[in-house]
Amino acid sequence: MFQSFDEVSEGQASGARLERLRERLAALGLDGWLVPRADEFQGEYVAPGAERLRWLTGFSGSAGLAIVLKDRAAVFADGRYTIQLAEQVDPHLFETCHLIERPPAQWLEETLRGGEVIGYDPWLLTADQASRFETACGKAGAVLKAVDENPIDAAWTDRPPPPVAPIELYPDELAGRTPADKLEEIRAALIKAGADAAVLTLSDSIAWLFNIRGRDIPHTPVVQTYAIVRRDDLPDLYVHPEKLTEAAAAHLTAVAVLHPPEDFAGALAGLGATGAGVLIDPATAPEQVRAAVAESGGRVITGADPCILPKARKTRAELDGTRAAHARDAVAMARFLCWLDAEAPKGELDEIAVVRRLEAFRAETNQLRDISFDTIAGAGPHAAIPHYRVTSASNRKVEPDSILLVDSGGQYLDGTTDVTRTIIVGKPTDEMRARFTLVLKGMIAVSRLRFPKGTTGAHIDPFARHALWQAGLEFDHGTGHGVGVYLSVHEGPARLAKTGHTALEAGMILSNEPGYYREGHYGIRIENLVVVTGPQDIPGGERPMHGFETLTLAPIDRRLIDSLDAYHARVFAEVGPLVEADVRQWLEKATAPLAG
Amino acid sequence: MFQSFDEVSEGQASGARLERLRERLAALGLDGWLVPRADEFQGEYVAPGAERLRWLTGFSGSAGLAIVLKDRAAVFADGRYTIQLAEQVDPHLFETCHLIERPPAQWLEETLRGGEVIGYDPWLLTADQASRFETACGKAGAVLKAVDENPIDAAWTDRPPPPVAPIELYPDELAGRTPADKLEEIRAALIKAGADAAVLTLSDSIAWLFNIRGRDIPHTPVVQTYAIVRRDDLPDLYVHPEKLTEAAAAHLTAVAVLHPPEDFAGALAGLGATGAGVLIDPATAPEQVRAAVAESGGRVITGADPCILPKARKTRAELDGTRAAHARDAVAMARFLCWLDAEAPKGELDEIAVVRRLEAFRAETNQLRDISFDTIAGAGPHAAIPHYRVTSASNRKVEPDSILLVDSGGQYLDGTTDVTRTIIVGKPTDEMRARFTLVLKGMIAVSRLRFPKGTTGAHIDPFARHALWQAGLEFDHGTGHGVGVYLSVHEGPARLAKTGHTALEAGMILSNEPGYYREGHYGIRIENLVVVTGPQDIPGGERPMHGFETLTLAPIDRRLIDSLDAYHARVFAEVGPLVEADVRQWLEKATAPLAG
Repeated sequence: MFQSFDEVSEGQASGARLERLRERLAALGLDGWLVPRADEFQGEYVAPGAERLRWLTGFSGSAGLAIVLKDRAAVFADGRYTIQLAEQVDPHLFETCHLIERPPAQWLEETLRGGEVIGYDPWLLTADQASRFETACGKAGAVLKAVDENPIDAAWTDRPPPPVAPIELYPDELAGRTPADKLEEIRAALIKAGADAAVLTLSDSIAWLFNIRGRDIPHTPVVQTYAIVRRDDLPDLYVHPEKLTEAAAAHLTAVAVLHPPEDFAGALAGLGATGAGVLIDPATAPEQVRAAVAESGGRVITGADPCILPKARKTRAELDGTRAAHARDAVAMARFLCWLDAEAPKGELDEIAVVRRLEAFRAETNQLRDISFDTIAGAGPHAAIPHYRVTSASNRKVEPDSILLVDSGGQYLDGTTDVTRTIIVGKPTDEMRARFTLVLKGMIAVSRLRFPKGTTGAHIDPFARHALWQAGLEFDHGTGHGVGVYLSVHEGPARLAKTGHTALEAGMILSNEPGYYREGHYGIRIENLVVVTGPQDIPGGERPMHGFETLTLAPIDRRLIDSLDAYHARVFAEVGPLVEADVRQWLEKATAPLAG
Repeated sequence: MFQSFDEVSEGQASGARLERLRERLAALGLDGWLVPRADEFQGEYVAPGAERLRWLTGFSGSAGLAIVLKDRAAVFADGRYTIQLAEQVDPHLFETCHLIERPPAQWLEETLRGGEVIGYDPWLLTADQASRFETACGKAGAVLKAVDENPIDAAWTDRPPPPVAPIELYPDELAGRTPADKLEEIRAALIKAGADAAVLTLSDSIAWLFNIRGRDIPHTPVVQTYAIVRRDDLPDLYVHPEKLTEAAAAHLTAVAVLHPPEDFAGALAGLGATGAGVLIDPATAPEQVRAAVAESGGRVITGADPCILPKARKTRAELDGTRAAHARDAVAMARFLCWLDAEAPKGELDEIAVVRRLEAFRAETNQLRDISFDTIAGAGPHAAIPHYRVTSASNRKVEPDSILLVDSGGQYLDGTTDVTRTIIVGKPTDEMRARFTLVLKGMIAVSRLRFPKGTTGAHIDPFARHALWQAGLEFDHGTGHGVGVYLSVHEGPARLAKTGHTALEAGMILSNEPGYYREGHYGIRIENLVVVTGPQDIPGGERPMHGFETLTLAPIDRRLIDSLDAYHARVFAEVGPLVEADVRQWLEKATAPLAG
């Protein structure tokens, strides 16, 4: 089981831990300390030893930050965690604030009286974040100070050590490109940016570049390392020796120079000392990386991580692999939905049982490496919480005549899946059916769109909302995110969102997942993954157009909709031959023409 | 007649003029000079004495720039002027370059050898433009220098004097707000921006703020003046005494302190000397304004002109006036289209005759103050040129079985109109009909859209293109621009365009004008003006939604389309009662149900 249903919060220990932290801050001459929910690689998931925010405050959400002052402290998290914050964090120790409505920088500006020194660990804030906090402290007459020794690590005596999972090689045949070929493209980007080197800090960029994978953190199969790519020399990779199997060492030595992680800081200083122009992505690189280069005399060139865009343009091999992964995942989804239709009406299922059975169906493919993220299985009103994660405490029965929303995905060696289906157990209300149909119209409008070169996610996102808008409805999340290939299920740079200003390019994989949420009642989301196609000529047209090919193959609940025959025929034709007779029989009915 | 068909180019005089300019540059110790097609107010139209680019190069387009070096010179204009550049500019004197593909800053970077001093008139470049040219010169090792004496003005001995048309008062009842009320809003914006004063340089901002209009330049009824709005004091207005009728002086003295224009430069220096924070819009204010404040010790606060957004949010009175103007304009359009249907098949009409007759129909309303812009009347292949303007030289017959595209508008005291209709003379081809229908679908999709607060023009623009995209077609201009009320027919900040990132707000007037152009053959554009409505509750919905109310009331050629019955019924119901019997009879047929 890749998912746990425990809420790992030790909020009751916060009082003593906060006291220990404040003692250490006093010893360091600091008036405050910033505790982000981030590690030194700034990815979505962190290893247990990096759960500093949870250790200190009890808050176990996946995004947030705490500020500890001498006599006051606060925890910040976004709207999806409002209830969780209240449950996990002791209000006598911490104020709880909305991350967007009262951001931590604003809180600092309003709270500091002037003259304070606020410390932070420069490995745990990005350069952009550090710069924002510096401005906020400055406005209040206080000083933001990067501190080498993290006082939480000193106070957290049983902190788990960093992960050292063995590196796995990613076959060149699945990647469709060799590391040498990718390095050539990155070097060309360095030359274009006028840089002598680039520091890579994002684990999925490094995994992509060197065709490696790992198991350092949950759900995203990356290796936590840093790399320096040089214009005229082999790249350097800073990787713990324990991660290097014999095969990995042989593979990597052929394309890079290997160093232990503790040499990284010195290497940045050495790079700076040569006066080199160093490309650093301030939105993703730790502030310490920027500072080390700048303070040793290097010329920092700010720009996007040069791997992000090439990684997003999937190769033909990656797309073939992803299609195979989706076909495999579709078999598990068909079995799951068939099982659900049989079991749910009995009234015995709860959310945890649903999550367990779905993961089991995926595991039965014998090719599941991990789930892409903790499965969201929201029954009834829980379906209205877009990022709901079931715990033993929140677990809810799947009741008759209610909606069940299931958002899940699998990590397979050849691809990453992510699919959401909304199922009616029993009979839907007319309102449910009407709104489900509006959401589906949006999903289909996006999937059928043709668009010219240069079109961005912001241009496409409104088509997912159009039918809802006309009815006076809206949903408060983006329409889609980029997806990796046996990498992160959330990757940049393109997004289908109101602020997605990156142009879509052929080979980018994106989710297409409009929704509708009626708080306290039910929620709807329908998600397929799509890949950007083209540019292709259209008969009678003048300009080649991009479009989307749908990757996900799972039935959409006909009991909630109007017309879907063509898509369903394809689902049955492609998935039917892969499943056993009784599932095939069910699938045939589930995908039958609506008129029939 | 507000439109002339002469091409006012004196390209044959360019040789001597260029020589005179180079002599003066040598005397001033300059190696080059920049000649933008702009005056010191940075509006769309300029007075004859500000046509420096035309005087020097012969190029009479409405946008462009020349660079004159000792031994080389170039004129830059965008794609719509490629042919005109070739016709008007002597290739032995000037290279001609595409303004977008090889921008002047890039040309400078590539052409300068280092050490040159390039001069410019700091009243004629915006602060943003000057900064870009400064960067470009710096990269080439040259220096950009602001020069007080404009050597063209010295060389141009018979340069017409600046306009001094009398100021007209704009009735408070039509504006819907008094100048005092508007000033209060602008002062609140100053306080919010932390500014002590704002310098206003855009003529339409000043016209809006003080409820005045003028006739200094063609087609846009503004007064060329500058203003300084102060946080705690009356605003200052720098206006030529000859423009002040007794009524205007009385009106303006009540809300502002009046000064002659020559006091403006000193006032900027005086403002700076007090150390004041001064709000300046670097995208629209002359560089000299920024420099005068900064160099005298003022704190320049860069931000958008504070009138732009309030001006775009039309009052109820302005919308009522605009509706009346459109109803009046619709009568002229109905008469024009009726006349055209009778006359065009005879084969005798040419583009100039069309333009003359249309202006005459508008003039017959007895309320036409000006046309909104030079009418675009493109016959056959000329319809494929989006900004075509007919001259005696280009004038083309309206041939049988061809398309005529007419884009025009009127300036009335109560509102500004802008309407494009595409008419088939004789029989359309199947392709014409198919593509006209796609363009119309886009226009209608936009006009029927509902959208939530925060939606931008970039989110809406793709709906105008969707039907075309699906067919492999596209048009290369924005879908719409903001429109003023008896002010500029092109006003900011909102645009329906791929890069229109301003949120639409209730009361904004925009054009909705998708098109399709087949170069060398024909062109299609259908344009209505719309006003942003709402937010309004939708029955059964949860969120109030904005939408559009269509202002323009003119038939769309049924011979080129599929179905338009509802719109046509409204046109006949609203316009029919206003026209004489024979026109009404024609209108009834022109707007008859398609099935009928």
